Amino acid sequence: MRLLLTGSAGFIGSHLAASLLTSGAQVIGVDNYLSGQPAHTEALKRHPGFTFFEADVSQGLPLVAGPLDWVLHFASPASPPHYQQFPVETLMVGAQGTQHALNLARRQGARFLLASTSEVYGDPLVHPQPETYWGHVNPNGLRSCYDEAKRYAEAITMAYHRAHGLDTRIVRIFNTYGPHMRADDGRVVTNFIHQALAGEALTVQGDGQQTRSFQYVSDLIRGVRRLMDVTYHGPVNLGGTDAITMQRFAEVVRAAINPGLPIRFVPLAADDPRQRQPDITLARTLLGWAPEVSLDEGLKRTIASFRQQASPAGPLPAADLPLHHPAT
Amino acid sequence: MRLLLTGSAGFIGSHLAASLLTSGAQVIGVDNYLSGQPAHTEALKRHPGFTFFEADVSQGLPLVAGPLDWVLHFASPASPPHYQQFPVETLMVGAQGTQHALNLARRQGARFLLASTSEVYGDPLVHPQPETYWGHVNPNGLRSCYDEAKRYAEAITMAYHRAHGLDTRIVRIFNTYGPHMRADDGRVVTNFIHQALAGEALTVQGDGQQTRSFQYVSDLIRGVRRLMDVTYHGPVNLGGTDAITMQRFAEVVRAAINPGLPIRFVPLAADDPRQRQPDITLARTLLGWAPEVSLDEGLKRTIASFRQQASPAGPLPAADLPLHHPAT
Repeated sequence: MRLLLTGSAGFIGSHLAASLLTSGAQVIGVDNYLSGQPAHTEALKRHPGFTFFEADVSQGLPLVAGPLDWVLHFASPASPPHYQQFPVETLMVGAQGTQHALNLARRQGARFLLASTSEVYGDPLVHPQPETYWGHVNPNGLRSCYDEAKRYAEAITMAYHRAHGLDTRIVRIFNTYGPHMRADDGRVVTNFIHQALAGEALTVQGDGQQTRSFQYVSDLIRGVRRLMDVTYHGPVNLGGTDAITMQRFAEVVRAAINPGLPIRFVPLAADDPRQRQPDITLARTLLGWAPEVSLDEGLKRTIASFRQQASPAGPLPAADLPLHHPAT
Repeated sequence: MRLLLTGSAGFIGSHLAASLLTSGAQVIGVDNYLSGQPAHTEALKRHPGFTFFEADVSQGLPLVAGPLDWVLHFASPASPPHYQQFPVETLMVGAQGTQHALNLARRQGARFLLASTSEVYGDPLVHPQPETYWGHVNPNGLRSCYDEAKRYAEAITMAYHRAHGLDTRIVRIFNTYGPHMRADDGRVVTNFIHQALAGEALTVQGDGQQTRSFQYVSDLIRGVRRLMDVTYHGPVNLGGTDAITMQRFAEVVRAAINPGLPIRFVPLAADDPRQRQPDITLARTLLGWAPEVSLDEGLKRTIASFRQQASPAGPLPAADLPLHHPAT
């Protein structure tokens, strides 16, 4: 199997690449390092099945000779501080970037998988969110450069499926954490771990009673690979189902690293969703998928990798990660 | 004043061009005739202030020498049959097209106005819809190629405003009717008039109890021109406020043309909104604007122009239209 993966140097892209390579696939990675990290490319390059192009998918994709089975579009800034720093680039990778990836898939007779997001549900009014829920998104607010880019990406993916018969998949990825996240990612998991490892106060937004449901990255990768093995064109949620309040989560991270640290409350970010939790009935029935890694276990692995990143030995190479991906 | 107007050969674009030209402005029109009509260009060309480029704004805009005060982005298929026939082109004119227009405005130091739509509200759960309502849109349904393209266009317009300080306007246009609509437009006003003039049954979708609020095109143009004269960057609704059921509307059109015709009920189109009606409080206070042309009067003018279009004398030239646009 030969695949092209955009965003291969990103948090999720690098795990997906490592998983595919371990299964014997040939992976062509593409990243422009706007938010991806060169260290992941270096680690992946140690695998002979990996080739890499430094390119901005919004401007176009390299001409790929030979057969191609899949185009996997995972490129995008994904954390609010990153995409709000690069709003136009984020919008472009959702529109032009997705279209270039779709055109490549069409030209090469490949299948196409879009990494969409739970952000298409915005600040949802329905809990948990099934794939049939249309979402509650501010179309021109501060987060719209990401949310609307991804909704657009879903729309154009379905347009190519309907108009051109392209064999497409859409995965809606809920909050995911694990090794390979940037320490400056800006989302709550990395914020808390980073703060606790630095001996600082953990900053909880708002009253801390807003909830999130986290999944460990290996669970997500297992789900994405299952989705590649079935034929289903609508969006499929993949995410953790155990909701935890941000205050409680801060307490868990603090307990795992340094129980003596204070917790400090700061203002809530604009349009931040109060609650978000996937309905994974479809993934259960279609893919036989459910999360397996507990929050305690996932945090343990994530904290260990953050400690190692901070050590002189440097970051954990992607291909060495103990990823769970049974051959499906 | 010198302006570039995309979609100048379209229904609303041609009226806006005629109105601006009548006020002494120089108008550079751009259209690729995907849904625009060459007859409108021909009529506008009789005015010395009008120049025209046949170009696809999704691929780029002509290099314009000299000063430019405004870029007005009105290009897009807008009726469900048209945009569902051209889903990818519709998505592109919302993304690449809007961005090319924004880039031109930025390069030339011009202001920018986006023609957005009530479709950003989708099938709304709030009535009437204020600009603060986030909408209820299926992100990957059959209508998403239009709805999500316009939501994306709003998001990127606000991103250019926030990131680059571009002086932008967003008008959310509700159902509008009048001369210059294509007979095959496919929306309810043209369908009913076309059917009644042809002596056919008027086809009402669903149970006919879904409502719409129509505005006559001269009211819309007056509102757009007012919006150009104030400094306000958020979206502004412009639309009619008198809701009418589709069954009642069929009866009104039939009565105006041929009371003996039958009314036939056909299935409802996918994701068709049940009800949509603007809250125009903002337009009233910000622009001192409200619709003025009654449905009876607007229909009379529209039917007259449809009869004339069908006559051997050909279509009514755009520049001759009795548009209401008091100097503001």
